[in-house]
Amino acid sequence: MEPRFAELKNRLAEIHDVRRAQEVLFWDQTVMMPPAGGPVRGAQLTTLDRIAHAKFVDPAVGRLLEELRPYEESLGFDSDEASLIRTTRRDWEKARRVPTELAAEMVGAAAEAHDVWARAREESDYASFRPHLERAVELKRRYIECFDGYDEPYDVVLDDYEPGMTTVEVRAVLDELKAELGPLIAEVGSAEPDEEFMSGPFPIDAQHQFSLRVIERFGYDPQFFRLDLTVHPFAASSGTQDIRLTTRYEEDDISSIFTAMHECGHGLYEHGVSEALERTPLCHGVSSALHESQSRMWENVVGRSRPFWNYFYPQLQSAFPEALGDIEQERFYRAINRVKPSYIRVDSDEATYNLHIILRFELEQEILAGTVTLQELPEVWKARFEEYFGISCPDDRMGVLQDVHWSSGGFGYFPTYTLGNVVSVQIWEKALSDLPDLHDQFELGEFGPLHEWLRTNLYSLGRKFTPQETLERVVGGPIDAKPYIRYLKEKLGALAAA
Amino acid sequence: MEPRFAELKNRLAEIHDVRRAQEVLFWDQTVMMPPAGGPVRGAQLTTLDRIAHAKFVDPAVGRLLEELRPYEESLGFDSDEASLIRTTRRDWEKARRVPTELAAEMVGAAAEAHDVWARAREESDYASFRPHLERAVELKRRYIECFDGYDEPYDVVLDDYEPGMTTVEVRAVLDELKAELGPLIAEVGSAEPDEEFMSGPFPIDAQHQFSLRVIERFGYDPQFFRLDLTVHPFAASSGTQDIRLTTRYEEDDISSIFTAMHECGHGLYEHGVSEALERTPLCHGVSSALHESQSRMWENVVGRSRPFWNYFYPQLQSAFPEALGDIEQERFYRAINRVKPSYIRVDSDEATYNLHIILRFELEQEILAGTVTLQELPEVWKARFEEYFGISCPDDRMGVLQDVHWSSGGFGYFPTYTLGNVVSVQIWEKALSDLPDLHDQFELGEFGPLHEWLRTNLYSLGRKFTPQETLERVVGGPIDAKPYIRYLKEKLGALAAA
Repeated sequence: MEPRFAELKNRLAEIHDVRRAQEVLFWDQTVMMPPAGGPVRGAQLTTLDRIAHAKFVDPAVGRLLEELRPYEESLGFDSDEASLIRTTRRDWEKARRVPTELAAEMVGAAAEAHDVWARAREESDYASFRPHLERAVELKRRYIECFDGYDEPYDVVLDDYEPGMTTVEVRAVLDELKAELGPLIAEVGSAEPDEEFMSGPFPIDAQHQFSLRVIERFGYDPQFFRLDLTVHPFAASSGTQDIRLTTRYEEDDISSIFTAMHECGHGLYEHGVSEALERTPLCHGVSSALHESQSRMWENVVGRSRPFWNYFYPQLQSAFPEALGDIEQERFYRAINRVKPSYIRVDSDEATYNLHIILRFELEQEILAGTVTLQELPEVWKARFEEYFGISCPDDRMGVLQDVHWSSGGFGYFPTYTLGNVVSVQIWEKALSDLPDLHDQFELGEFGPLHEWLRTNLYSLGRKFTPQETLERVVGGPIDAKPYIRYLKEKLGALAAA
Repeated sequence: MEPRFAELKNRLAEIHDVRRAQEVLFWDQTVMMPPAGGPVRGAQLTTLDRIAHAKFVDPAVGRLLEELRPYEESLGFDSDEASLIRTTRRDWEKARRVPTELAAEMVGAAAEAHDVWARAREESDYASFRPHLERAVELKRRYIECFDGYDEPYDVVLDDYEPGMTTVEVRAVLDELKAELGPLIAEVGSAEPDEEFMSGPFPIDAQHQFSLRVIERFGYDPQFFRLDLTVHPFAASSGTQDIRLTTRYEEDDISSIFTAMHECGHGLYEHGVSEALERTPLCHGVSSALHESQSRMWENVVGRSRPFWNYFYPQLQSAFPEALGDIEQERFYRAINRVKPSYIRVDSDEATYNLHIILRFELEQEILAGTVTLQELPEVWKARFEEYFGISCPDDRMGVLQDVHWSSGGFGYFPTYTLGNVVSVQIWEKALSDLPDLHDQFELGEFGPLHEWLRTNLYSLGRKFTPQETLERVVGGPIDAKPYIRYLKEKLGALAAA
């Protein structure tokens, strides 16, 4: 092996180990840590971030990347080696613009803000969270100042989650969607209360067992995975062989099954990255939208489909005889696919979900521009929410405090959820054209062929290519809202017409 | 603040954060990690160790320590600042003798060996573990070669756990004990089988609840502590406010209650370190023997005492009515204090426990000297065990594989267990002379005054002073086997005479 390449790889492996340690420590903080451990954990996360950042922006890394250009050019574009050099160069040029201290401050502020947010949400107390949000926004503005050459400041934060994508491009996709969603929701939506059986009872242990049974058919295996409890479900990993999913249970709510499928989709992506990329910066899903395409595919395109429930509904009835014993499958299927404006993004239906994202996307741009202040934010939220959803939001817990993302300064993340919805159907259509009997297999409880197709065509690639290159390789073209719009119209239109 | 002191403190805080991250990652590996995560976790632990070690042995740290001599001399010996400089200088002079790569190799080897040991123990398969033990010994020999000026090679490994103590001193304490233990065990020991009620049934959930109830009276608080399951119980911590205890349960064995008290003793020590020492290298118990003095005090001196059971036995009977409902307290008290040679160190009684340690102490010296090879080790173990205990060891699971320590190259640790026993009674006698009504308080379920006395006089000091200085401050003199021998003779003699 080219010795300078070996040196680069060693340096990157060390940095990756520190980043993974951060990920495990964050998981531990959220899932396992005794409550009083927060401040010291915050300091630990800050330190690890400072170390990883400093090691990465070291000029020696830049020199190696420069010296390795001929080696890179001697290799195929698709080789792991050329991809590692190419992707690392892009990461390095971006990272060296951010001072180590600022990067560490952002991590420390996020760790501190997390517990404050969790309490504030619990108590619907925006005021106690606001100072932390102020700090997150101020740090994000300082972060944006580290860059130049962008069209809009929002491009910078977006690039952290969807490298190479611009605000203009996102706006085009979301605008196309918004124009179609309005009429669709007006046509198929309902303001009637949920069917009574949807509030249970769903005993929590049975939810846990059923969730595991479903995701085990998707590819969850306790040799490689865990499933634990948190306030805000997420997926984390220490490597391809150690995947941590989290979920939450409420006795009057069956949505935990969809949460488990969602997080399992994230986990399967990380678990499926080629083992040859382990302990390299390529050992992750390529972008937030591509990641979300997988969580949303397993949750919605698979998990809210008729063939899926043709297999699973009898088992679900056995698991929850009191709530569902007398409920026929079609009634349940309609209930979980019902379009109805509601307060909580993660509990919302496939169609109105995107309105939540559009609201966040607009507010994030306004907050960063200063056209909405953090003092007025809860009121602006409520007004805008009523305008988009036609219902009024009762409190901040159900409103602006519902999501964890802003506590860690995660601006730019929300739009990738809807981009993920869009991409999920592009990928699904491609998988279906390669494997036309996927729905027949779902009916038999067989999800392995879809999992294997995704592993081969998407997961194994990790971060070897850009998100755009990756999508091009998987579906043969760029992001396109039309398949998703078609999917929603067909599925929801059929339900409304029936 | 002296700016160079601030710089030193910042550097040490960063290193301490990395060390604590290692501790959490090790805890996670042992308690939470999916089985397949081992290899990558090993690499992560190796990397963190390499980073912490390299940052610590940096010549800049040595320069700061040198430049800070006048500042140190201007401060009181007992001040946190002078203690930090003094202790760090000793740590630094020791650490810089060990090459970063060797230190990292030792951590990596330990992480790899851990799972192999756990499987080998399960299957009583010494052969599969031997290559890892060979490597651990070879690394330990290379480690010893980094030092000079010692009387015996074993001094070097001992110093890692009991800084400043020599093999000669340990041998003197263990020899004095061995001479007294032989006759005592002959007098009070019994070869009869255990009383039948000692094999339960003890439903596991009730064991867990009862363990928590006991240690909550000692000072365990879920705000700061966790209690989880492992093969080999241990205590770890991420800081003074985040303490992780582990234990194990068997339906036919009530010893988990003593395990919980034991690990809680370790945890209370770490939790009680002065918060002013947080994120410094002084934020730990001072040595293995002092640490063990606390686990053994809470487990044995408190937890196997009559006053303790006068309070707790009725609750224990309610928790385990089937096994203990008809058993009077005195019979239970005698059963848990019965002296009887047995195979497993951690399950053994207070007196024969020390024979296990003496066996390990002798074997460790012989292994390092090469006078016992790792090929013959299991047979030597069995022969020696029969000689000391008068019973023959059935297999390696019950013999040489029973303990985790050697898998991580932890030679030098075992003797500190018995030193801890010795010190525990020295400290107990001092606490009792300050607070003569401790036993009356135990009868009422009050353990707060003892906890508070220990926090004030021992725990809060952390690593500010050497183990010898610390013991001197707590009990007014050096290590002395006589109080412990007196304690054993009085307690066990009374039981045998009755």
